[in-house]
Amino acid sequence: MAARLTPAPVGAVRFEGGFLGERMRVNRDAILPILHEQCRATGRLDAWDWRPGQPNPPHVYWDSDVAKWLEAAAYSLSLHPDAALTGRIEALLERMAEAQLPDGYLNSYFIRVAPEQRWTNLRDQHELYCAGHLIEAAVAYAQATGRTAFLDMVRRYADHIATVFGTGPGQRRGYPGHEEIELALLRLFRATGERRYLDLARYFIDERGRAPHYFEREARERGEDPARWGSRGYDIFQAHRPVREQTTPEGHAVRACYLYAAMADLAAETGDDGLRETCRAVWRNLTRRRLYITGGVGSSAHGERFTVDYDLPNETAYAETCASIALMFFAQRMLHLEADGQYADVIEQALYNGLLSGVSLDGTRFFYANPLAVYPKAFGFGMNRFPAERQPWFGCACCPPNLARVLASLGAFAYATSPGTAWVNLYAVGSADLDLGTARLRLTQVTDYPWDGHVAITVQPRQTAAFTLALRLPGWCTDPAISVNGTPVDIASVRRKGYAHLARTWSPGDCVELTLPMPVRRVRAHPSVRHDAGRVALQRGPVLYCLEEDDNGPDLAALSLPRRAAVRVDRRGSPFAGVPVLRARGRRLATAGWDDALYRADEPAPPTPAALTAVPYALWANRRPGEMALWIRES
Amino acid sequence: MAARLTPAPVGAVRFEGGFLGERMRVNRDAILPILHEQCRATGRLDAWDWRPGQPNPPHVYWDSDVAKWLEAAAYSLSLHPDAALTGRIEALLERMAEAQLPDGYLNSYFIRVAPEQRWTNLRDQHELYCAGHLIEAAVAYAQATGRTAFLDMVRRYADHIATVFGTGPGQRRGYPGHEEIELALLRLFRATGERRYLDLARYFIDERGRAPHYFEREARERGEDPARWGSRGYDIFQAHRPVREQTTPEGHAVRACYLYAAMADLAAETGDDGLRETCRAVWRNLTRRRLYITGGVGSSAHGERFTVDYDLPNETAYAETCASIALMFFAQRMLHLEADGQYADVIEQALYNGLLSGVSLDGTRFFYANPLAVYPKAFGFGMNRFPAERQPWFGCACCPPNLARVLASLGAFAYATSPGTAWVNLYAVGSADLDLGTARLRLTQVTDYPWDGHVAITVQPRQTAAFTLALRLPGWCTDPAISVNGTPVDIASVRRKGYAHLARTWSPGDCVELTLPMPVRRVRAHPSVRHDAGRVALQRGPVLYCLEEDDNGPDLAALSLPRRAAVRVDRRGSPFAGVPVLRARGRRLATAGWDDALYRADEPAPPTPAALTAVPYALWANRRPGEMALWIRES
Repeated sequence: MAARLTPAPVGAVRFEGGFLGERMRVNRDAILPILHEQCRATGRLDAWDWRPGQPNPPHVYWDSDVAKWLEAAAYSLSLHPDAALTGRIEALLERMAEAQLPDGYLNSYFIRVAPEQRWTNLRDQHELYCAGHLIEAAVAYAQATGRTAFLDMVRRYADHIATVFGTGPGQRRGYPGHEEIELALLRLFRATGERRYLDLARYFIDERGRAPHYFEREARERGEDPARWGSRGYDIFQAHRPVREQTTPEGHAVRACYLYAAMADLAAETGDDGLRETCRAVWRNLTRRRLYITGGVGSSAHGERFTVDYDLPNETAYAETCASIALMFFAQRMLHLEADGQYADVIEQALYNGLLSGVSLDGTRFFYANPLAVYPKAFGFGMNRFPAERQPWFGCACCPPNLARVLASLGAFAYATSPGTAWVNLYAVGSADLDLGTARLRLTQVTDYPWDGHVAITVQPRQTAAFTLALRLPGWCTDPAISVNGTPVDIASVRRKGYAHLARTWSPGDCVELTLPMPVRRVRAHPSVRHDAGRVALQRGPVLYCLEEDDNGPDLAALSLPRRAAVRVDRRGSPFAGVPVLRARGRRLATAGWDDALYRADEPAPPTPAALTAVPYALWANRRPGEMALWIRES
Repeated sequence: MAARLTPAPVGAVRFEGGFLGERMRVNRDAILPILHEQCRATGRLDAWDWRPGQPNPPHVYWDSDVAKWLEAAAYSLSLHPDAALTGRIEALLERMAEAQLPDGYLNSYFIRVAPEQRWTNLRDQHELYCAGHLIEAAVAYAQATGRTAFLDMVRRYADHIATVFGTGPGQRRGYPGHEEIELALLRLFRATGERRYLDLARYFIDERGRAPHYFEREARERGEDPARWGSRGYDIFQAHRPVREQTTPEGHAVRACYLYAAMADLAAETGDDGLRETCRAVWRNLTRRRLYITGGVGSSAHGERFTVDYDLPNETAYAETCASIALMFFAQRMLHLEADGQYADVIEQALYNGLLSGVSLDGTRFFYANPLAVYPKAFGFGMNRFPAERQPWFGCACCPPNLARVLASLGAFAYATSPGTAWVNLYAVGSADLDLGTARLRLTQVTDYPWDGHVAITVQPRQTAAFTLALRLPGWCTDPAISVNGTPVDIASVRRKGYAHLARTWSPGDCVELTLPMPVRRVRAHPSVRHDAGRVALQRGPVLYCLEEDDNGPDLAALSLPRRAAVRVDRRGSPFAGVPVLRARGRRLATAGWDDALYRADEPAPPTPAALTAVPYALWANRRPGEMALWIRES
């Protein structure tokens, strides 16, 4: 059994203008050049040629940064051919090819810097992680350009890895401390049809967490006492027990979600219902207990990890940009496995909030962590590892290129196909060319989503044909409406697992109108989320809003929103052109009478009126630096 | 000019029963023996005899732990002679005397383990800190027992230190990374009358933070690059600038308050108004911007330090037990300098809340950090370094013996004298023998304080005499009443800086009745304290209350206290014999209708009634482990 849904090829989907289209243009025009320049300036592009004695040796994770840039560039090329960019890539690939060892081994650090350490520390050294990113980049580059030299390189590397690791005689029963290669091997399997890549992915997945524990064995081989790490627990690597016995997302959030994405793909490819149930259980706990409303995951900076149920602190949230990306991968694979809109809902939630918050509007600065409340004065004293403003780059630079490759490949999240059905998962102005097997068609969306809930979809089959158009009905929308060529559709009769399934014979020019009303929603968190008790979040469509100091003055925590206050949508007066902001009559705790006191027991003065303005969370920190708060006290 | 007030000798004050008396009995019967046993079991008592090659070498701060136990034991002996305890102490002092070097040097680590490192790293190695604790212990032991051998030892050590450090030719211009010796030298000056100890204290205080920076010089001498530390800032040591240019409490909270205590003493002894103004400025900022309502200081576990104004997080509060103790020292010195009840208010606030929370009711377990909210499930993932329950001991064991020496010397906080005036700072059942110079008298208190605000004080001068009885009027009390021999006193006419000054001719048996009404107070924090916005703390008398899971069930953050709800005092039904608890009709966020959702936008079910019980914060975690919250959401 294969996955029920197949993602649209990245090159088949065009986002033309609109909010996402503009973000993708910035990705192409600003972020991709910045990535290349940073990789060059930091020595990452020269890693393959580094020689002992030279300064600035490669680091164990540098290959992954370059690979993610390559992958993002490949997606970009599939829509926007660029000879100069292709030339830069080919030059790099040549250096890489020269460095590749005869046995296929391909890692700049372990070829150039520490060959004696090859495969000696899977727990910490990111060796298989880098391999995975190279594989993903090569698959994307082959699919975008038709050039297969890079793909051949990583196939030889994967074949080499398959000789080293496995359960056969003389093989090491290892698996990576940082997952990534598993989902990459499944992509390689799909791209090549070679089942041995699926088998290797399955081996890595099934071997994880088994006793005797591989990380203990390799620690002993390095002459280390394995008990020293063991006491910290292997849950940080999702290796505390075999994956099929895991029911909750644990440990490092990026690693975890990369693993779960691969598990879902493996379940889809093998029809492994046990693994599918594991994915469902983990998903349930993740989305019902451990997910920030922004689509962020990883509540603690210590370990960059999942913690416990309902533990979602706002100021100290880690919610790494990469973790929202990893969650999008997990959600995408579950969507393709289950054909259920709840997964697409999370893709949208992460995309418009916790992922896009990771980059400035101009594409030049990045957040690594995405807390839901920021008080800059106190920032450096808490758990926050990064400044309260976006940064041009990071020593450990995983997030910027990860963000670039996801933005460049949004088409694969927005549309999917299955035999006889075209799936629309995300709404954005633009078009997609889809091949359903039984029909080929172009879908064209005209919409101002996510700021307006009206979406006009023109259906252009090559010729009149019977197929199903499955339109996602977002979970946040309580009363969607659809008409086809002006005739209203009875939603109830076509709604199935979060999609409206419009099955009919379609003719070129048929027009579907989808209306997703977007009132401002006051969202509350479960009473067990101690950090949000008595608070509300403002959401409109898929977009979460927050208060910024620039609009509301300092001491945001002193502000409150009365229970019955109307919240007005204001687009004309917005500080961000075309982006609606929210306005309400709020209250501010009175400072009158406090003088110099820190604590008082007498009756406080009543709160004073305060005009509240909320802006999209993803757009915060694009103006003057200051405080930010998403959850607002209700009064 | 000397300090205006002189503390009562510890041996002159008896706490007989009552809440504090019982805490002091537990200190004598449980904590002191535990300290001795832990110091023995961990090798601390054998440190003076350790020889290279033996296991378990002394650590740089071990002497301070032993010294604090010695100091606490000395106070105890002054009231409760104990031949066995004296014998143990004398045996230890003999070993210490044998270890003391001919030049007077006295530190087990630098004599036995690393003599070559002596005086090479004042920044990190706690060498002068340990010296200070030895001095304090020796002064206390001499005052308690009249035995001066220990005092002679530390005098020789202090004299040696005075040859090493100073501004003279060949001297090192050093000062400690962890303050303590400054206040100890001022005690030694007062105990001996030798002005050179005051001069050495003044040198250490004045030299701190000067340029060129001593910590940089000694780092270079150790072959280290001083820039490596310098980038982290010397404010952690209160050495970022000369102390007279400091206006806010900065850095490590214990170190800071030890320094400020010494500065206040020095200002008192020298009449140095500039230094006095510095102390006042630091005090103002500390108490108006950076003080937990429990009397805790040090908002961040990173650096165990002060952070910025109004930054008082509850769950991640460090509020080290030692820091509340250090604050009590600072407050006590300011009280003696200024004769102002605001300082005694803070002594009482810290004592009954952030200090007594540091030890279990039975005296066998200790808190190092004292957060104001605890959610045990999430505890290990945040900034908290310690478990959510009190522990029997700590590797770095500063807090238990520090707590013991303060509990054993409460008499010196409770009473003071100045020429012609007897000062009563704390109310507790018991008696004090005071010498005013012009008169000698015994004061006997009968009271159930802090649970009841009625205090009967019998005044017993040796013979009829004119003097002033200064009774503290606590800042938390809005309508105190006093009568003398049944005749009401007009408070307004006798109130001066937080004390009622009762000047009259007193005869044996005169009876003063003080009434301090103790309604439950709903205390609010300044609107800029973002963590407490919309919340109240419940206080009765000097005692802060908190919610515990044992009484209120889990998910304490889901509870709220309606604005107008009556809060009832319940002593009969209290889980702690004799200790009133508070009861109120509160509310709990409804879980009805949530099913498995994490976020919801529909109207929530109204809160459900919840019977709230609050217990004294200092007594939390004496029953089943669970959640705790001091600040309660108001609804």
